[in-house]
Amino acid sequence: MKLPIALSNRHVHLSQADVDVLFGAGHELTHFKPLSQPGQFACDEKVDLVGPKGTIKGVRVLGPARPSTQVEISLSDGFALGVKAPIKESGDVAGTPGVKLVGPAGEVELSEGVIVASRHIHMHTDDAAKFGVKDKQIVKVRTFGPRAVVFENVLVRASEKFALEMHVDVEEGNAAGVRNGEEVELIAE
Amino acid sequence: MKLPIALSNRHVHLSQADVDVLFGAGHELTHFKPLSQPGQFACDEKVDLVGPKGTIKGVRVLGPARPSTQVEISLSDGFALGVKAPIKESGDVAGTPGVKLVGPAGEVELSEGVIVASRHIHMHTDDAAKFGVKDKQIVKVRTFGPRAVVFENVLVRASEKFALEMHVDVEEGNAAGVRNGEEVELIAE
Repeated sequence: MKLPIALSNRHVHLSQADVDVLFGAGHELTHFKPLSQPGQFACDEKVDLVGPKGTIKGVRVLGPARPSTQVEISLSDGFALGVKAPIKESGDVAGTPGVKLVGPAGEVELSEGVIVASRHIHMHTDDAAKFGVKDKQIVKVRTFGPRAVVFENVLVRASEKFALEMHVDVEEGNAAGVRNGEEVELIAE
Repeated sequence: MKLPIALSNRHVHLSQADVDVLFGAGHELTHFKPLSQPGQFACDEKVDLVGPKGTIKGVRVLGPARPSTQVEISLSDGFALGVKAPIKESGDVAGTPGVKLVGPAGEVELSEGVIVASRHIHMHTDDAAKFGVKDKQIVKVRTFGPRAVVFENVLVRASEKFALEMHVDVEEGNAAGVRNGEEVELIAE
């Protein structure tokens, strides 16, 4: 029941409308490098996040453009910005706080969309069958080493479009002392 | 088996010799506020940490002065500074990296002493008896809520001089979604 873990640094998903404002009308996001999930990629583009208490510069944009803009930060980032971001599943942004995005061509004042992404496992439906788990199931994941932890409340996201990987944020990864690609253990109960 | 948890931000313990260099000969560390452990206090004094890759400004000094200087940072701080700090118990600094400390009166180039403190529980010997655990025992600690985790490899430090409190760093605390003073559960096996 082993799978690789990856640490997600703060990042931004943008709608094409917001790409247009931040980087110029008709701008297309450029591929910097592919991510583990098929079709997803890190972009060359970066934006600054400006909150009531502080600014975080150079936050990487992930592509492709999505229907709506979403900003994923850590709890520490939220304190630094002065933005009280809740722990939410990606896409569940109703009622979340906003932040100002600043790009080279313009600014976007988001009214919502800032979250701390809840930990989750992407897996192909074939992996789900192998592990004996289902899409949306809550499982636990154990890490190893001097900072070993058991993460509870880990959401399984199974799809034919996904590749097997657990996603945590940098604080969760560092708290567990794990590096990108390290193997962790899925515990289904 | 409940006890309070506290998140330790980056901080510095100084020898009196290093206090003299950083803040001026004969300088006495000033009390900013008491900490939970008897006799320990946060100071008004702050220093900058300067590593090969970056600087972290305004890191608080904790008092009283100790026999040797020790810098406690997070793994993220270590990446920012360019200092590969190992996860170690407080005081176990042999072979650890150093960093430059900059104060208002001078600089100290530490040759060792930079660690990421391993999580631990301070408790009075009376608490240890109540919990049925011993000094130096390794236990687990469970947290609650959407980011619930079980921390493994938690060191018990029992002494008549200690007050009951679990200490984790900010990344561990945020990974578990806990705030200062929140109750967690000790699991002795």
